Amino acid sequence: MTQAPCRVRFAPSGRQGTVPAGTSVLEAAQRLGVDLDSVCGGRALCGHCEVIAVDAAEAPGSASPSSPQLSPMSAEEREFLSRRGPMAGRRLGCRARIQRDLVVEVPETSRLQRQLVRKPCEAHDIDVRPVVHPYFVAVEPPATGDSRGDLERLAEALRREWTLDLSGCDPAVAADLPRTLRSDGGEVTAAVRHDGRLAGVWPGLKDRLLGIAVDVGSTTIAAHLCDLGSGQVLAEAGRMNPQIRFGEDLMSRVSHVMHHPDGREELTRAVRASIDDIVGELVTRAGAGRDDVLELTFVGNSIMQHLLLGWDPTELGRAPFTLVSDRAVDLPARDLGLRVGAGTRAWVLPCIAGHIGADMAGVLLAEAPWERDEVSLVVDVGTNAELALGHRGRLLVASSPTGPAFEGAQISCGQRAAPGAIERVRIDPVTLEPRYRVIGSERWSDEPGFERELPACGVTGLCGSGIIEAIAELYLAGVVASDGRILAARAAGSSRLVAEGATSSYVLVHGEPGIRIRQADVRAIQLAKAALFAGARLLMDRLGIERVPRIRLAGGFGAQIDVRYAMILGMIPDCALERVSSAGNAAATGARIALVDRESRAVIERRVREVERVETATEPRFQQYFVEALAIPHEREPFAELRRAVRMPAPSPRRGPQMRSAVARHFGSAGDAGR
Amino acid sequence: MTQAPCRVRFAPSGRQGTVPAGTSVLEAAQRLGVDLDSVCGGRALCGHCEVIAVDAAEAPGSASPSSPQLSPMSAEEREFLSRRGPMAGRRLGCRARIQRDLVVEVPETSRLQRQLVRKPCEAHDIDVRPVVHPYFVAVEPPATGDSRGDLERLAEALRREWTLDLSGCDPAVAADLPRTLRSDGGEVTAAVRHDGRLAGVWPGLKDRLLGIAVDVGSTTIAAHLCDLGSGQVLAEAGRMNPQIRFGEDLMSRVSHVMHHPDGREELTRAVRASIDDIVGELVTRAGAGRDDVLELTFVGNSIMQHLLLGWDPTELGRAPFTLVSDRAVDLPARDLGLRVGAGTRAWVLPCIAGHIGADMAGVLLAEAPWERDEVSLVVDVGTNAELALGHRGRLLVASSPTGPAFEGAQISCGQRAAPGAIERVRIDPVTLEPRYRVIGSERWSDEPGFERELPACGVTGLCGSGIIEAIAELYLAGVVASDGRILAARAAGSSRLVAEGATSSYVLVHGEPGIRIRQADVRAIQLAKAALFAGARLLMDRLGIERVPRIRLAGGFGAQIDVRYAMILGMIPDCALERVSSAGNAAATGARIALVDRESRAVIERRVREVERVETATEPRFQQYFVEALAIPHEREPFAELRRAVRMPAPSPRRGPQMRSAVARHFGSAGDAGR
Repeated sequence: MTQAPCRVRFAPSGRQGTVPAGTSVLEAAQRLGVDLDSVCGGRALCGHCEVIAVDAAEAPGSASPSSPQLSPMSAEEREFLSRRGPMAGRRLGCRARIQRDLVVEVPETSRLQRQLVRKPCEAHDIDVRPVVHPYFVAVEPPATGDSRGDLERLAEALRREWTLDLSGCDPAVAADLPRTLRSDGGEVTAAVRHDGRLAGVWPGLKDRLLGIAVDVGSTTIAAHLCDLGSGQVLAEAGRMNPQIRFGEDLMSRVSHVMHHPDGREELTRAVRASIDDIVGELVTRAGAGRDDVLELTFVGNSIMQHLLLGWDPTELGRAPFTLVSDRAVDLPARDLGLRVGAGTRAWVLPCIAGHIGADMAGVLLAEAPWERDEVSLVVDVGTNAELALGHRGRLLVASSPTGPAFEGAQISCGQRAAPGAIERVRIDPVTLEPRYRVIGSERWSDEPGFERELPACGVTGLCGSGIIEAIAELYLAGVVASDGRILAARAAGSSRLVAEGATSSYVLVHGEPGIRIRQADVRAIQLAKAALFAGARLLMDRLGIERVPRIRLAGGFGAQIDVRYAMILGMIPDCALERVSSAGNAAATGARIALVDRESRAVIERRVREVERVETATEPRFQQYFVEALAIPHEREPFAELRRAVRMPAPSPRRGPQMRSAVARHFGSAGDAGR
Repeated sequence: MTQAPCRVRFAPSGRQGTVPAGTSVLEAAQRLGVDLDSVCGGRALCGHCEVIAVDAAEAPGSASPSSPQLSPMSAEEREFLSRRGPMAGRRLGCRARIQRDLVVEVPETSRLQRQLVRKPCEAHDIDVRPVVHPYFVAVEPPATGDSRGDLERLAEALRREWTLDLSGCDPAVAADLPRTLRSDGGEVTAAVRHDGRLAGVWPGLKDRLLGIAVDVGSTTIAAHLCDLGSGQVLAEAGRMNPQIRFGEDLMSRVSHVMHHPDGREELTRAVRASIDDIVGELVTRAGAGRDDVLELTFVGNSIMQHLLLGWDPTELGRAPFTLVSDRAVDLPARDLGLRVGAGTRAWVLPCIAGHIGADMAGVLLAEAPWERDEVSLVVDVGTNAELALGHRGRLLVASSPTGPAFEGAQISCGQRAAPGAIERVRIDPVTLEPRYRVIGSERWSDEPGFERELPACGVTGLCGSGIIEAIAELYLAGVVASDGRILAARAAGSSRLVAEGATSSYVLVHGEPGIRIRQADVRAIQLAKAALFAGARLLMDRLGIERVPRIRLAGGFGAQIDVRYAMILGMIPDCALERVSSAGNAAATGARIALVDRESRAVIERRVREVERVETATEPRFQQYFVEALAIPHEREPFAELRRAVRMPAPSPRRGPQMRSAVARHFGSAGDAGR
């Protein structure tokens, strides 16, 4: 083999340069700054540096397996590659030595930094830029007279083999080093964080590190276990938030903290124990161990975030709703009571304001409206509605005091979205007879087999989407007037409208108690939707726009709601129907992004610092917009289209079927993952 | 008051400059970079900025209380100062405004960085440069529309009032901020570390922060509670190390770890629980709370240090005696299971080598031999002897394999230094009749009342100093020959020499079993002292010196031993008797220095990195010196002087009487604090 210089070009990065003949492709990549992954450091153990050799004369893609540009394949390399699947053109970058000019293609899976393509409903692909990476090294055995500790010899090996300087290490990570370094002849894999801290050490080769993104909702805790290297989701799991036993809604939990000396500790302990339980389930399902989890990220509304961290949430229960801190929190996972690796860290996304929690920070990270030219309105409906409006580097947020009506609270027959709740309603505009669908069943109430498929609890109430559809349908049928009155005059020939005191109610399900839409329910929804609409108007004013070209509905409610009905009621500003879409559980997606893309953390921290907060409570125009938005808008632009649209078959709810079944598995029924 | 410029000079720093008339002395000091302490930031609350005004024409010291150089004293200032004691010339720096040229004297107690004068036995004064300082601030209440968290408003107040930038905060420190900030109208004291991290927050003024220096010995755990601002020791406490129940000596504890799956955890838990217990006792005794403890430091031999940190000590039990890490460890105190403040840190001194632990690092910090022109030999005798030799920036260390004979182990009637152990021995050279003194009693065995004052256990055995004195006295009496043989021929007319098998024994205490010095005991001491001597010789060789001008004996054994006997036996190199002294519990002093002087930490870390380690195990000359040192040297230079000296009354043991009584309080008898 001559030492003549060879030109090598890497695709798709386009980086190129000259290396002496005999240089391995991995060395060439490292020298030219090409992102080619490796865990074993060139020992043909991990296969992360797999490449495809292309003749320099040919275009990338036309692989030449027996290319003379590279050294011949050894039996060892051939066997290793064949274990990993079909061979076409593939070579191990650490074994293939460059003999002549060539082009090397680095497949996506061989890059340390890659992109995860997301589902169509999601806003943008996820960059994978791991917070922690495994490095295989051979650590020198200690000699007599060598006073260096095990940790220092490991640091030396990382410096020698990877030009990597350890910046420190949690002392607990070093506790078992003596055994680890001596169990496999000094060959270990060290997990090193991007800041240089040692996060874990295992004997031999370990090329998969795990992380968990946790969405702490007040109702449900949901978590995704991810491969930190590839960004792929390996398992999902969920639980009811056990804090529910201390109070169904957020304010009653704050009240529990205020009135019980150990209240805060109880709530904190409960949520941490449940998360620890989920961690156990996730690693078991992925065939891994708790120590394999190196990183966790958390989103949740401000009260959930405070209780997770053990912070006093009292001030979040009263004006001016002051946070303990508006920054992201980085802490050892064990400080959250989680039994994971000794060097495992937890990163808790920042809250944006007292009412705009870390869950909204997650939504914003997932949606990144500032990255688009076009303005987007992002709406996350929970106990209050959190709104964001932005484009081209600009971002405004507000919280609208909708109250919990959209979650089924403050509605006479309302309930949380859970098995047995009516989620879809259609009302015949002539006969006023309804048909409906219930969570836990795929059939409409007028379809054969409906009764048989009902969940065991039967029909239990109306959830948020159910009440919205019912009121919108009553409006379309002329039973509810534009000002919200239920018109008893429309009762002629129907048993569905009954008088209750001075007002009338619509009977959706006959029986005692049955399920009714009462005048007070219409009023509650009117107040909530007016608040939501007025908040959005305020943001639009601030940005100086009259119409929003694109609306994204985040969260469980956003996925469950039928956008057409939301528009009929005037919950959201005018927008072309096809430009209104669900963002899925964007808060959870945000937690996943923060988990696998270290650079996203600085992005959301900066956004939260720089975001323009619009105060609905003190802005005089909010009151005006609110009053104006109380009526159901009969002259809205796409109204005729909407009227036609809702006569078509309803689309399926967009809740993630996987998460739904994960929760169901725990509760023996199809629960809802809405936060 | 005019705005004319006034010249002000501060003593003793000598800093001077011009300030506008009307400037307060505190402001002037801050502007001119003079070290004048303040906790309350100029609110006349803390009194830390007290100064003495001197007429510019006069020399410092001649105070003029009603000096027209300063604004007149207000009733408030007068009352505040009078509460603090006699008034002569004292003023509050924050209240006294400069009106004319003057000299201001800053007393030692008003400096943030000061010096603690140590006892004569100690090597140098201690610089007090606190790791953490209290800052009193008024935090703005939150307003509607202010999205800043409590923590961020506190940070803002520290920036505004103290130009101090918080660099971060353990999330647990923030847990109770909402209540703290609201309980005293937003006036709080924040403890901020030198690295800018927030360590604690209290309502109102708090001007005393505490720290604890802990010496984890394999027998005794001893701790000092200190005022981190003044460096003063406020309380001391000690306990037996509860690990003793898993093994009396270090190697049996390592063996417990190796042979029990939970062994390491048991040992770690035991020592941590005991330290936590001591913390509770110390704060109670100082009338403080656990949360007032902001910092802890730890010294201990390498096995104690590893077990404290939860590290696997197995490799310290076998060659080549490899440490887990040779660095200092900085970690949250709660990670050691200590119930102290949420922001409290622990700093564990570094080990120097497998055999030369963090206790020796403490000894070196206390002794700082590299700071002297003259060469010092520092000897710390424990299970092995750790030796250091150095001067003028240079430092060499070695560990000599003395084994535990000096601790009374491997001696037939030997025991740990504890009540009942014989610690002093005199033998009549004619009659061979002995007299002795026992730990726990002040009387010699031939004094009236000896029996009455004995501890309840009676006379139980010989501790290290007892066996050394006994053998040296037998040598002086001609019973033990220079080669170590017990000479039966000297038995004539005495019941004290008896034959045991082929050798003879000296009966120190008659009875069954009685207390005897056997031939094997003399051999054990010969081996130990030869190892110690040979190690010292090796270091002297390396430094190129023939004699050491100064010897310091550290640790309990060093304090207990009568230097004259050590020299008679040839334990230590030739040195003028008056230049051999006890360094007291220098390891504990080192822990105290690291506690109150943040800059000492970098000093010892650098010294440990740069120290020259001399390997007794692999150095061929060690064997030669060892063999040469086995004999008892009858021709040593100060021999005649020594012979005379030991006929004088023996000096009292130099063990600290306070520590002795602290331990005694716990065990109902005068225990020994030897490590």
